[in-house]
Amino acid sequence: MLITFEGIDGAGKSTQVKKLRKALTDAGRDVLTLREPGGTDVAEKIRDILLESKNDITPVGELLLFSASRAELVQRVVVPALKKNTVVIVDRFYDSTTAYQGYGRGLDGGMLRAINDIATFGLKPDFTFFLDLSPEDALIRKFSEKSIPLAFEDGELDRMEQSGLDFYRRVRNGYLELARLEKERFILLDASESAERLHDRIRKTLGEAGLA
Amino acid sequence: MLITFEGIDGAGKSTQVKKLRKALTDAGRDVLTLREPGGTDVAEKIRDILLESKNDITPVGELLLFSASRAELVQRVVVPALKKNTVVIVDRFYDSTTAYQGYGRGLDGGMLRAINDIATFGLKPDFTFFLDLSPEDALIRKFSEKSIPLAFEDGELDRMEQSGLDFYRRVRNGYLELARLEKERFILLDASESAERLHDRIRKTLGEAGLA
Repeated sequence: MLITFEGIDGAGKSTQVKKLRKALTDAGRDVLTLREPGGTDVAEKIRDILLESKNDITPVGELLLFSASRAELVQRVVVPALKKNTVVIVDRFYDSTTAYQGYGRGLDGGMLRAINDIATFGLKPDFTFFLDLSPEDALIRKFSEKSIPLAFEDGELDRMEQSGLDFYRRVRNGYLELARLEKERFILLDASESAERLHDRIRKTLGEAGLA
Repeated sequence: MLITFEGIDGAGKSTQVKKLRKALTDAGRDVLTLREPGGTDVAEKIRDILLESKNDITPVGELLLFSASRAELVQRVVVPALKKNTVVIVDRFYDSTTAYQGYGRGLDGGMLRAINDIATFGLKPDFTFFLDLSPEDALIRKFSEKSIPLAFEDGELDRMEQSGLDFYRRVRNGYLELARLEKERFILLDASESAERLHDRIRKTLGEAGLA
């Protein structure tokens, strides 16, 4: 079984991944958690380029690098694990590409579907938990955590470039559209709920499917 | 004008690129010569991964990395140079992907066309000089140069894995097929001719097109 988590940064994906991993492991399941980009020697090198070159890389170059990392991860790690009946949980998968590069950056949808199919060899998640949060709430969360440096000082939230927020609004709307289009696997969750409550909902969904 | 050189290693591409660059420069043209993968900061980092990870990378991962490097090169370097009326000469372009990853490694042709279109933004060469040489002749050339270490000792040519030669035969046949399919830009040259003679043929072709 392949389970993915999606949502904008700050929505609480990694917290839910950890909780779910613990719950499934406690229930006696073999569990593998992964995060993109990265996860193999080659994919980690690609990750380094993506992180180092953040501001200098073209949108299509970025798309192809994310996809190269994904192709390596899927072939080398995800598919072999699924064959051994391991539950694989991935923090971001190809829906991130559709939401960020497609809806966010405006790359062509047909092109993205073609690239996503190539990079995943047609592999689809059984469940995709989409933690939905408004970009404004995500910003405020990150800001209050103070763990991530932001481009503005206390009280200057309104000075943040509007284009930044607009980008995340497009990404969020993209995710909402995907959730509508792929109802059979997308589980839309309100990420403003407590972590415990979200975890209960996720386990309930998986329990109904015979897992956890 | 965009001019590309194609052919298996040992066919003499880099010699012809150098000769053509000199001839065009002497004729007063602005000329830019490039080689793939690489050519921008990001593309050179991708090149490092491709060279370092040669034996450990999946065919699709390799395809996507070559394409990411190409997308960066096209957007950052090739298109701006063409806009300034510079003659751009590239040692290998997307036909290499079709020949090596498609015909050579057996990746799907439709997938390759899709990826090539994405990476080049639809840019096509005005002329593609294909230096055709049999893999056996290419091997013997490299061997006699002694500049490239080979996997066999003197006199042990027959011990070379047959699959290696078979791979290059498929690549060569792929190029020949491309030359048939895209007659309007492919110039098929017999690479067993002398470098001077080949250079004369290339200049004649370009002269007829009003260049050089």
